[in-house]
Amino acid sequence: MTDLQTVDAWWRAANYLSVGQIYLMDNPLLRDSLRPEHIKPRLLGHWGTTPGLNFVHAHLNRLIRAREMQMLTITGPGHGGPAPVANAWLEGSYPERYPDVDWSEAGMRRLFRQFSFPGGVPSHAAPETPGSMHEGGELGYSLAHAHGAAFDTPDLTVACVIGDGEAETGPLAGSWQSVHFVDPRRDGAVLPILHLNGWKIAGPTVLARMSDDALDAFFRGMGYAPLHVGGSDPVQMHRDMAAALDAAADRLAEIRREAPAAPRWPIIVLRSPKGWTGPDRVDGKKVEGTFRAHQVPLPGVREEADHLAQLERWMRSYRPEELFTEAGPAKHLRALIPAPEARMTASPHAEGHRLCPLELPPVEPSAFGMIRPGAELAGATGHLGTWLRELFRRNPDRFRLFAPDETKSNRLDAVFEVTARRAPGPVGPEDEDVALDGRVMEVLSEHLCQGWMEGYTLTGRHGLFTSYEAFIHIVDSMFNQHAKWLRTIRRIDWRPEVPSFTYLLTSHVWRQDHNGFSHQDPGFLDHVANKKAEVVRLYLPPDANSLLAVAERCFSDMGRINVIVAGKQPEPQWLSLAAARAHLDLGFGTFDWISDAAPDVVLACAGDVPTLEAVAAAQLIRTHSDLRVRLVNVVDLMALQDPERHEAGTPNSAFAAAFTTDRPVVFAFHGYPGLIHRLTYRRPNHDNFHVHGYQEEGTTTTPFDMTVMNRLDRYHLALAAVKWTGADAPDLMRHCREALERHRDHVRAHGEDMPEIRDWDWSVPAFGR
Amino acid sequence: MTDLQTVDAWWRAANYLSVGQIYLMDNPLLRDSLRPEHIKPRLLGHWGTTPGLNFVHAHLNRLIRAREMQMLTITGPGHGGPAPVANAWLEGSYPERYPDVDWSEAGMRRLFRQFSFPGGVPSHAAPETPGSMHEGGELGYSLAHAHGAAFDTPDLTVACVIGDGEAETGPLAGSWQSVHFVDPRRDGAVLPILHLNGWKIAGPTVLARMSDDALDAFFRGMGYAPLHVGGSDPVQMHRDMAAALDAAADRLAEIRREAPAAPRWPIIVLRSPKGWTGPDRVDGKKVEGTFRAHQVPLPGVREEADHLAQLERWMRSYRPEELFTEAGPAKHLRALIPAPEARMTASPHAEGHRLCPLELPPVEPSAFGMIRPGAELAGATGHLGTWLRELFRRNPDRFRLFAPDETKSNRLDAVFEVTARRAPGPVGPEDEDVALDGRVMEVLSEHLCQGWMEGYTLTGRHGLFTSYEAFIHIVDSMFNQHAKWLRTIRRIDWRPEVPSFTYLLTSHVWRQDHNGFSHQDPGFLDHVANKKAEVVRLYLPPDANSLLAVAERCFSDMGRINVIVAGKQPEPQWLSLAAARAHLDLGFGTFDWISDAAPDVVLACAGDVPTLEAVAAAQLIRTHSDLRVRLVNVVDLMALQDPERHEAGTPNSAFAAAFTTDRPVVFAFHGYPGLIHRLTYRRPNHDNFHVHGYQEEGTTTTPFDMTVMNRLDRYHLALAAVKWTGADAPDLMRHCREALERHRDHVRAHGEDMPEIRDWDWSVPAFGR
Repeated sequence: MTDLQTVDAWWRAANYLSVGQIYLMDNPLLRDSLRPEHIKPRLLGHWGTTPGLNFVHAHLNRLIRAREMQMLTITGPGHGGPAPVANAWLEGSYPERYPDVDWSEAGMRRLFRQFSFPGGVPSHAAPETPGSMHEGGELGYSLAHAHGAAFDTPDLTVACVIGDGEAETGPLAGSWQSVHFVDPRRDGAVLPILHLNGWKIAGPTVLARMSDDALDAFFRGMGYAPLHVGGSDPVQMHRDMAAALDAAADRLAEIRREAPAAPRWPIIVLRSPKGWTGPDRVDGKKVEGTFRAHQVPLPGVREEADHLAQLERWMRSYRPEELFTEAGPAKHLRALIPAPEARMTASPHAEGHRLCPLELPPVEPSAFGMIRPGAELAGATGHLGTWLRELFRRNPDRFRLFAPDETKSNRLDAVFEVTARRAPGPVGPEDEDVALDGRVMEVLSEHLCQGWMEGYTLTGRHGLFTSYEAFIHIVDSMFNQHAKWLRTIRRIDWRPEVPSFTYLLTSHVWRQDHNGFSHQDPGFLDHVANKKAEVVRLYLPPDANSLLAVAERCFSDMGRINVIVAGKQPEPQWLSLAAARAHLDLGFGTFDWISDAAPDVVLACAGDVPTLEAVAAAQLIRTHSDLRVRLVNVVDLMALQDPERHEAGTPNSAFAAAFTTDRPVVFAFHGYPGLIHRLTYRRPNHDNFHVHGYQEEGTTTTPFDMTVMNRLDRYHLALAAVKWTGADAPDLMRHCREALERHRDHVRAHGEDMPEIRDWDWSVPAFGR
Repeated sequence: MTDLQTVDAWWRAANYLSVGQIYLMDNPLLRDSLRPEHIKPRLLGHWGTTPGLNFVHAHLNRLIRAREMQMLTITGPGHGGPAPVANAWLEGSYPERYPDVDWSEAGMRRLFRQFSFPGGVPSHAAPETPGSMHEGGELGYSLAHAHGAAFDTPDLTVACVIGDGEAETGPLAGSWQSVHFVDPRRDGAVLPILHLNGWKIAGPTVLARMSDDALDAFFRGMGYAPLHVGGSDPVQMHRDMAAALDAAADRLAEIRREAPAAPRWPIIVLRSPKGWTGPDRVDGKKVEGTFRAHQVPLPGVREEADHLAQLERWMRSYRPEELFTEAGPAKHLRALIPAPEARMTASPHAEGHRLCPLELPPVEPSAFGMIRPGAELAGATGHLGTWLRELFRRNPDRFRLFAPDETKSNRLDAVFEVTARRAPGPVGPEDEDVALDGRVMEVLSEHLCQGWMEGYTLTGRHGLFTSYEAFIHIVDSMFNQHAKWLRTIRRIDWRPEVPSFTYLLTSHVWRQDHNGFSHQDPGFLDHVANKKAEVVRLYLPPDANSLLAVAERCFSDMGRINVIVAGKQPEPQWLSLAAARAHLDLGFGTFDWISDAAPDVVLACAGDVPTLEAVAAAQLIRTHSDLRVRLVNVVDLMALQDPERHEAGTPNSAFAAAFTTDRPVVFAFHGYPGLIHRLTYRRPNHDNFHVHGYQEEGTTTTPFDMTVMNRLDRYHLALAAVKWTGADAPDLMRHCREALERHRDHVRAHGEDMPEIRDWDWSVPAFGR
């Protein structure tokens, strides 16, 4: 049997197994004629893209065997689930992971039955699918994931099949730029295979309707060297695809050998019919090669005898008797299975088995040397930057920073002492901290940053994504998918945990001095809090040392999504490193130096700016009234929950020890107030929580005026303490009201805050006591 | 003075005004030497992109005057705020909107002072900026907005400046495809001007580092005919830019005349130095033409004498004495001001003055003819589809449907009786409901759908965006920006309200039969609820007639963002059209036919699937226990709030009349439970609310099994009613527990729900009473 005959047999086998998954509950080898009771009651699944995916997989196996390549495959098109599952079964990796679904006839029956069946397996290349690192349920991220997997894995080739529907999405369209960020000297290769089959669901796709010439120009312009394969005759298509893949592999070998500064990477443009090899016509309408092949092309097989007969003819057209024995795939098929570790459906990279342990530097050298709380100013992210510099130094091949051009403006530029931004093209004389081997991945696309880093961390490496707080919502939906992926792999025994995904959001809602209202949105915290507790963590370190303690934890943890919101501006510092670590251990804690015993009111705070305002409010209360106050700072928001709802939760006793059981709690919160209510909903004393936070009021103004606009400032907090305690504190009330009036006049007249705000003495905790 | 000398003078004037806005509080005409007290205390703003924007604006004015073109301009690059404000002032539209900021010296002083000043104007082309419809604070949406504005405005040319940083974003990269959706017979033209100045903030940009040849191939491939302009010598650049714009205008005129099926639209690729005409070097470092020109190139002007002197030289280099008199722009400049209505800074399209009123068809013909609640099945979106068909029929030039290829799968395909999908290329023999003049805008990019529809509605037309519930998070951040824009225009007296932006989310969390866990996320409701109450509305119609009533309201309302979540599958119907309208008026209401007087427990529900389950739970309770139950359905989530917090809120009396003041409320909610707690937080009886909703548990399974996995099913609801009332109801409890056990066994064995679920009799409200 020739190579291509084997490839064709494999393709037929994978197609047969795919159709079987969509339709059959029983009679997997078609020993009997199909009867209605062999058919699933609910026909779910998508045939349209599947034969194309099987075609690509079969041909990649030929390449892997012929050239001993190390490959990983990413399935971009939506709903191609039957294909990777079929190939994993053929390659034996499915039976290895799921011994019940083995190569026996009973195993094949289970394989068919479980697909899209209650308690069974999903219709995408989900975490349950061996060798998968990309579900493709939501479209647009395949190419970014592929590049993330390829960075720093020089021997790996990532074949990435991209659907023509998917190619219409913004994130995919932006991902073509990734080609400018691959360094052939240290990175693996990505081989995109653009699969054009004409329609997305029912409507035509843009890229499929472009001519080959137009696509050629488009990709050449973007920096690729396209190879075109198109048609529907299997024999010719096998020849053309094999030739194109050989050419691509030759080109990749040449690029690896010569490592040019700006290589032209190959891309394969594959045109094949939607629903290829499926029913040509159904009920008089053309199906193969049309949008009608998208889902289940023969919907009435359980009810209509001619549909059932047509399904049987279709399945028998693959000649299963040549392909399967009672003991699994026929011997000639097995000749195409790569060596165990080389199977794409068992890729150790994709499955997270290639964890590259991170060597963490000590945080002590980066810590802020505390003298007295509030006595000196420091920028939290600046301190983190020096630690990240050491992290880069100790982990030169397994850590990257991802950012939409904000490393410097977020004060992390100490990292540029040991590395640089990756140049997306020739480096010019006026570029600073830009190099072809830079490890800071700056691209003005949050989608690319997220997608690259997901690919990078899913394959066992580590990263930090730093961005604007407001605009991290750009990746809300990508976060959802990644959180669901991480939640699901925790429930799959053969999947190891992968490194955590950590966000550092620094240009945050309260410090949009240049930008104003459009740059103000703290709602990513709410969005993340909706996801499974076992996966997500939200940190609001109030100063430099607490940021370092949080960073240390985030990079030690596995399998989580951490969101850190921190300040980048010079601000008062509150905690020594030891105190910051203890503070983080519980998740919240009292600032004793500004707190009274047996308080009348608790001032709680979370976030750097709210902490400033709460401390100032405590000073005001202690200076201008007899009210006794306690200041509680929250660094780990999830600690506000009880341990039944979140594993980072704290027992009610610890909660009550800080927040009391009966005193009003005036809570100055970084984000929207509703989140604090949500997290503390079941807590004792919850009805006594009065949360101040962002109320969607803002413009380009001073940082302090922003807090006033949203009633988060020291004066409103102090007034709230009076209100909710019902205390008699006329001096304090007069002082606060007058100060607010003075402030409003001053800021509009002078364009800056009044001197008493600018020169506030944070280091004097208790005037008058 | 020649044309181009006037253009140059305008450019210098706009640059002068831009620098003045960034730096000066006083001495606007430089009558005196600059002194520190003339300088703002906080220097905020961005110079880098501004001179390029001014250059483009000046040249477009020449074109508008020379050819009597109707133009609108969109400023894509971030932080270009000083430029549109400067041009609006020069054109007189700023003084018309803000009489204080007139052409006098005092007016110019105010113009300078107000920029990025507390109580002043933002640093972007915000709603406060005359002639703006695109803030550009978040990058990536300019080209989509431009196309939205151009659809159905055949005489309009939308000039869209795109920054090279912005061009890296996914949404912008995907927006190039818009060119395939413009119909020269009925749409306006978009003229993209890609502005390459080399760096985003501090790092290089991908597109700026591509060669002209590469960019040329890229754009030709995508369907454009590029024109290149590049350099730094103003005289040559003026000549080249004028020639390129003339060529582009000729080409546009030819396309308009000949209306080819696949026109090649012009695009201008403009390379100019970042911070062009600004300080060449500062403190020994090159600034003009480098990343250092991004923000404020001379940061120390208030403290350092040489910076101050350099600023003065810079400002005087524009020769202000030739440009401004005490009464405003010099006469020779005014020669370049277009006719009042033709000024881009007073564009009636951009400012929303060109409202195209929508003729609403009656909903009655589309209504479901109710016989008895629950007696018959109907699909809600199918009924809406017939109404949308009539809406298309009556409004052939001002309504479009936007969707990522889901019109048909969301059962809205009745619209295809009067229109079709817009073809993105040649229409093939197997295409169905696809035409070159189709008005259903299907593109598999939620970003494009959102951006197009924003542009379309901001310019006075109407649309509906229908999508998957889970994947609408893709546009979370775009929604934020649009909500902020709508909130802000409500506070600007000269801005009329624009049509509402309505989402229809139908393939929702509970009906992902094909898709499973990755397609389940109801959190868009939470995301939207964070925004200002005056702008947002959330509707969960439980059946066809309530969906029609909601749609009628959404298309009558102005200036809001409406989110509708509705079912597309055949489901029991509950409300006649009259009842549905009354139900919507209050926002919630009792299903009397299944409710007892003086209830022991309230079963509340919001959403189609939760309503099914709550009705079934009520039936179970009434059949198997003595508990008295009331069923309250919520259609308008905002009605749960009190009127002080939301203008759609209901008074506590009405709330208590439905939900009681002291009975347990078991609430079956479509989304995450926290949202109901957030909305009812201040309500009487809130502590008695027990919300069941989505708990991030799901897979590919039956719809009913999904509700069981999340404890939203009828049995868990009935058990909760027993638990929270503390009632003695052993029969009910046994019945529910046994049914849950039977269900679990049955669904995994048979792949479908047990017969008692499939054949549940919705029309029998009260067995046994």
